[in-house]
Amino acid sequence: MSLLIDIRMPNWLSDAALCDRLAPLLPDVTIHTGAPDRPLPDVTMLAANRMPSGLAALLPNLALVQKLGAGVESMVNSTELPAHVRIARLEPQVQADEITEYCLAEVFATLRNIRPYLRQQQALEWHEHAPRRAAETRVAVLGLGHIGLAVAQGFSRNGFQVSGWSRRLKTLDNIACFAGPDGLDQSIAAADFVVAVLPSTDATRGLVDARFLAKMKTGAHLVNVGRGDLVVDQDLIAALDKGQLSGASLDVFNHEPLSQDHGFWVMENVAITPHVSGWSLGDGVLDVAENYRRLMAGKPLLREIDRALGY
Amino acid sequence: MSLLIDIRMPNWLSDAALCDRLAPLLPDVTIHTGAPDRPLPDVTMLAANRMPSGLAALLPNLALVQKLGAGVESMVNSTELPAHVRIARLEPQVQADEITEYCLAEVFATLRNIRPYLRQQQALEWHEHAPRRAAETRVAVLGLGHIGLAVAQGFSRNGFQVSGWSRRLKTLDNIACFAGPDGLDQSIAAADFVVAVLPSTDATRGLVDARFLAKMKTGAHLVNVGRGDLVVDQDLIAALDKGQLSGASLDVFNHEPLSQDHGFWVMENVAITPHVSGWSLGDGVLDVAENYRRLMAGKPLLREIDRALGY
Repeated sequence: MSLLIDIRMPNWLSDAALCDRLAPLLPDVTIHTGAPDRPLPDVTMLAANRMPSGLAALLPNLALVQKLGAGVESMVNSTELPAHVRIARLEPQVQADEITEYCLAEVFATLRNIRPYLRQQQALEWHEHAPRRAAETRVAVLGLGHIGLAVAQGFSRNGFQVSGWSRRLKTLDNIACFAGPDGLDQSIAAADFVVAVLPSTDATRGLVDARFLAKMKTGAHLVNVGRGDLVVDQDLIAALDKGQLSGASLDVFNHEPLSQDHGFWVMENVAITPHVSGWSLGDGVLDVAENYRRLMAGKPLLREIDRALGY
Repeated sequence: MSLLIDIRMPNWLSDAALCDRLAPLLPDVTIHTGAPDRPLPDVTMLAANRMPSGLAALLPNLALVQKLGAGVESMVNSTELPAHVRIARLEPQVQADEITEYCLAEVFATLRNIRPYLRQQQALEWHEHAPRRAAETRVAVLGLGHIGLAVAQGFSRNGFQVSGWSRRLKTLDNIACFAGPDGLDQSIAAADFVVAVLPSTDATRGLVDARFLAKMKTGAHLVNVGRGDLVVDQDLIAALDKGQLSGASLDVFNHEPLSQDHGFWVMENVAITPHVSGWSLGDGVLDVAENYRRLMAGKPLLREIDRALGY
């Protein structure tokens, strides 16, 4: 019975760094790290961020995949992962805070023209642009889970007019709540910024398409910190080109890293960041250790996902 | 008895636009607009943002200069303005909010590497940089007047660790307060961001010099939304060049517009904005009208400044 750490994202979190944090929490457990080159029949739990092709076949006794970052669709959609293998996710508060701060940074930077001023500086130009104010700005947050709720509250405490949309209707202080297809249209029609914090599911893939973009307020700005496959890229490019949207801040993409020939790169009204809105595992490492213990003891897991529902 | 509006900043606020807002509030008052080309003996009050050379001589019966934007030093230091002419300033809440949002935009943009990511995008590069979090970031706000207080509270409500420095010691919730020269050194020594919201006075001009910059934490970032003459430009450039500071966000300068040959323009770790942190007059226009009425009625003025103290 052992644990395998196989993250394959060394710029984010090396396998060794996570092992160093887990080892003191699981002193009697063998922890393997790195992509295995032979079967590891003793591994019952995998800590990973994606489900690499070929890995499941090397782990015949795998019982649990513990997802480290946000979004479980690569596990849920894996055709190689046997149906009996369970999947759990993390909900570190630090990552919800980080994603909130990313969204505040992007929206305040847009209201205060930070990117246009940098381009002016590169051209030695001094021109004033009137700033826009939070109090006069409407933000619609799509998705009110652990992270979306933190994002909506972050905008609310800074004086923005905030609405939130979720599958099931919620009631929240200072946030106008919407649900269902009609609620979605209402929420985005009034918003100066639409902030997508949705998971990737059958219901959300391709949601931000030409129809959705046409429902948005003319001149609005899209922020996507959810999943890349929410967006139909060509529809977004068309909406930006014709001025239906004034800009987009994108941290996630259909394919990452974004290929060098993608149209987004050269659009001045698109801000590209390399999937960094949520970053730190924080106390999530405690839950990884706890889920190993619970798996071994046959107890209910922390944040197990429903593989049929996809979240 | 009449009012002259002579702003000379058409990109910010045209004389006609202010006249349109004041006329309904002062229906029986003659309002002149624009730089006069002959003496205007009927003018008793001037609404302006700077004190242009030669203007005072054309207004022999001037009794009050109503400053529109922040900072009264151009009036206080004018050698042409007779000693009996009074000076009043405005304190629109909307401008305090705007300056707060400018500071949040600059600090969050720095924590989230918005400018480096834009430069990467221009080079089609995808590299992750670890974000920094508000909760782990110390901000020192220098100046706790109307605007500085709003700025400090803005950082505090977003989870930053905030200290504030003022001439007289204050007591504020969630803000560590300092005063005096020793307090200044303590406040800036610990800060990741030093945000200057100070007026231009004999005590503050040149405050941010080599000595001050050497007291700042290595790798810290300076934000100046106070007055340009707080900063000794060559000392700041030297501190940035040698890595004592990691960056600076400057909205105000010793000479504006910043001359094209100034060293700031080409420094990647300096962000230049063209004096736009506070922008809107908001309800301040009501105070302009009220001060005209009070002047005529011989009543105490709103926010009259002490010409000897300079604020």
